[in-house]
Amino acid sequence: MEPVLSYIDANLDSSLARLFELLRIPSISAQPAHRQDCRRAAAWARDAWAALGFQARLSETAGLPGVIATHHAAGPEAPHVLFYGHYDVQPADPLDLWKSAPFEPEIRDGKIFGRGAVDDKGQVVSFMEAVRAHLAVNGTLPVRLTVLLEGEEENGSPSLKELLANERDTLAADFVLVADTNMWNPTTPAITVSLRGLAAVEVTIHGPSRDLHSGLFGGPALNPIRVLTKVLGDLFDDQGVIQIPGFYEGVAPVPEALKESWAGLGFDPDGFLGAVGLTHPAGEAAQTALAQLWARPTAEINGIYGGYQGEGSKTVIPAQATAKLTFRLVPGQDPTLVVAGFKEFVLSRLPADARAAFREGGGAPGFAVDIFTPYMQAAQAALAAEFGVAPALVGSGASIPVVEAFKTVLGLDTLLCGFGLDDDCIHSPNEKFDVACFHRGTRAHARLLAAFGAQNTAI
Amino acid sequence: MEPVLSYIDANLDSSLARLFELLRIPSISAQPAHRQDCRRAAAWARDAWAALGFQARLSETAGLPGVIATHHAAGPEAPHVLFYGHYDVQPADPLDLWKSAPFEPEIRDGKIFGRGAVDDKGQVVSFMEAVRAHLAVNGTLPVRLTVLLEGEEENGSPSLKELLANERDTLAADFVLVADTNMWNPTTPAITVSLRGLAAVEVTIHGPSRDLHSGLFGGPALNPIRVLTKVLGDLFDDQGVIQIPGFYEGVAPVPEALKESWAGLGFDPDGFLGAVGLTHPAGEAAQTALAQLWARPTAEINGIYGGYQGEGSKTVIPAQATAKLTFRLVPGQDPTLVVAGFKEFVLSRLPADARAAFREGGGAPGFAVDIFTPYMQAAQAALAAEFGVAPALVGSGASIPVVEAFKTVLGLDTLLCGFGLDDDCIHSPNEKFDVACFHRGTRAHARLLAAFGAQNTAI
Repeated sequence: MEPVLSYIDANLDSSLARLFELLRIPSISAQPAHRQDCRRAAAWARDAWAALGFQARLSETAGLPGVIATHHAAGPEAPHVLFYGHYDVQPADPLDLWKSAPFEPEIRDGKIFGRGAVDDKGQVVSFMEAVRAHLAVNGTLPVRLTVLLEGEEENGSPSLKELLANERDTLAADFVLVADTNMWNPTTPAITVSLRGLAAVEVTIHGPSRDLHSGLFGGPALNPIRVLTKVLGDLFDDQGVIQIPGFYEGVAPVPEALKESWAGLGFDPDGFLGAVGLTHPAGEAAQTALAQLWARPTAEINGIYGGYQGEGSKTVIPAQATAKLTFRLVPGQDPTLVVAGFKEFVLSRLPADARAAFREGGGAPGFAVDIFTPYMQAAQAALAAEFGVAPALVGSGASIPVVEAFKTVLGLDTLLCGFGLDDDCIHSPNEKFDVACFHRGTRAHARLLAAFGAQNTAI
Repeated sequence: MEPVLSYIDANLDSSLARLFELLRIPSISAQPAHRQDCRRAAAWARDAWAALGFQARLSETAGLPGVIATHHAAGPEAPHVLFYGHYDVQPADPLDLWKSAPFEPEIRDGKIFGRGAVDDKGQVVSFMEAVRAHLAVNGTLPVRLTVLLEGEEENGSPSLKELLANERDTLAADFVLVADTNMWNPTTPAITVSLRGLAAVEVTIHGPSRDLHSGLFGGPALNPIRVLTKVLGDLFDDQGVIQIPGFYEGVAPVPEALKESWAGLGFDPDGFLGAVGLTHPAGEAAQTALAQLWARPTAEINGIYGGYQGEGSKTVIPAQATAKLTFRLVPGQDPTLVVAGFKEFVLSRLPADARAAFREGGGAPGFAVDIFTPYMQAAQAALAAEFGVAPALVGSGASIPVVEAFKTVLGLDTLLCGFGLDDDCIHSPNEKFDVACFHRGTRAHARLLAAFGAQNTAI
């Protein structure tokens, strides 16, 4: 193992230079204006894997293409690992809060700053550099490896199941390694064993047939912003319990065993909230902060807009107002029923003359990972060897819909192991990835590949 | 009178051409980017009055300048009329709803389309053309005339009182004629005898110190949009009564005499609301639609924004969310106390970790005009002569803060007479002014000037 790790240490600068090439491409999948940038990022990744000796190509979908790269020189008896990451990134707004331009990456204080620095370009390149080291030192890989990079992860993965189905044969691995999660802290790695799901919906309240002057119509004219705030103001009761009909149907209480395991992690709610300027857990009052985060569903208004938003004031009654919501789901909840319940919640509260229009986004149920498989044991050992401490088995409040898709479309279990930190500001201005995490992540990935290669293929 | 009216009829096309010159200048006072455009509009007006033989100049303020033009050839015994209008306009957004570009005016179906077509550039030029006709035919005017055009009317008139105080001597007229209101219907002129006041306030709810990922923080992290919608959702009870403490303090019931006069107008609430796609009066359930509009105060959310507003979805918990509100006030309400009450309303509802920041805009109390002055009688006769029907004495739900400013700073009463129509879409896309209203308005202004000139100076 040592020559591979030494190679990684010696080549850190050129590894970072390759990451920076990818970070400079503004591959924002949610914004149609960046469609070509997304395709440029896909082509960059295809070419980078091809340069390592992989058979690499784009796999077209109704949306943005996947990147598929295979390296099977280890032979048919070797374990077959499917690595998953994504080459698209979140929108960068609000731009004025970035200290450096989001798509002009730079290193400050030992941290790589840029949109996608960690989510997920940094994690993908970290893995790619581990592969590069194995190939440079040994001329081959310890496993059969198939790489799949998605281009729509930050936009609800609308084409993912189509992509998996199209590539069913190529992707028929033993299990999936997903690098899109965090360490427990800067010195303790983590494997994520439970994930929340996601359902997205947008509601627009329509009122008058056009924008109105609030002096000439104010009073008798219905204001859609008033309706929208009134409806959304009912979303929670004073204990933080979500009021959508049927919302909690199927939600199981947190298992005692998991509660105990989490208690052992020493989670510090004051420190967690304090890092972002908060002091009180704002979710269901009856739950701990960690349960609110890992084990309980949420209703989140991610955006709201209507009427005049410029400087000064404008005495307008707008014709419409819109809110964008997402729900974090736990195992047992059905995304379709949650969205249906929200629609019913809104429609049952509309006054005369108000009309609601809905747009549904992607959805995925919550998921719990099987923690008793051989490759999970191998991964724990490899991570412990790199970090000198056993990995934490944690939950995550975030959604990685691909985990559910791999299970339902391909029948594959997933191992979630990534090297981000909670303060990486993903989806926010000034997203960063510690150079140390990138570097240790590459070393850890190299050890993971070796550990998987040492397994029986019947894992 | 006939030669003056014939001159107006014969020169309609060149009158419209002059109006179009002014409409092409995007003088949006609320937007700093249009500051120079506002100054261009002021210079245009100054030069136009100077070309008519007025002494014309800009009067600088801390904000945008006023335009002042005087023509006192009628001599010191003639009545002195102060004409007021404004050269600034509302923002033009949302741009995609305009059928023709807002600052490229055009006539379609006998209507002038463009931002400011009626509010207030069309009304100002209509008056200017009446002056032009008197001067062309008679070589002089029936009254001493001072013209004052403001540049910040659509942005809360922050410099108006400063302007009036600076120009106290120049503006020392017998009364003020304001052309910024509507006719009762296309064939019935109107004089507006009551106005609602205005108070403006913006509230921003701050939560986390930065935008957060709703998966990694959702649940325990406070969402400012949730707080904002919850607070604003409490603004009205289920009878439409505003819940701000002290809001209705000082509000008098509608006088019986005024109620009876309004009943005689034949106001059609179904037609009024139906024209903008509505069927039910949305204000206080205990009030008629006309009382909601003319005699009762309102709380209006003119704009709201926070979080992600682009295409697709973004799983963000934003650091802040903002709403812009204005209150329409009736005589007896104090704008300062209303804003203070709103702040108390918000602050008393904030959960832990939420912080509210406020920005106050301009304000003006509601106002009732003295309807028993001689010039008011003269105006009614002049309007009846032009239209063949007595003018309606109406209320207005809109605010014209200048009326209060003229009273308090200069001690002057105001006569509100304008020629817009309720369907002119002021403050909305596709603002228009009927060519017929522009034309009849010019003729009516010519008659008004003559009628005022025939009065004793002791009006």
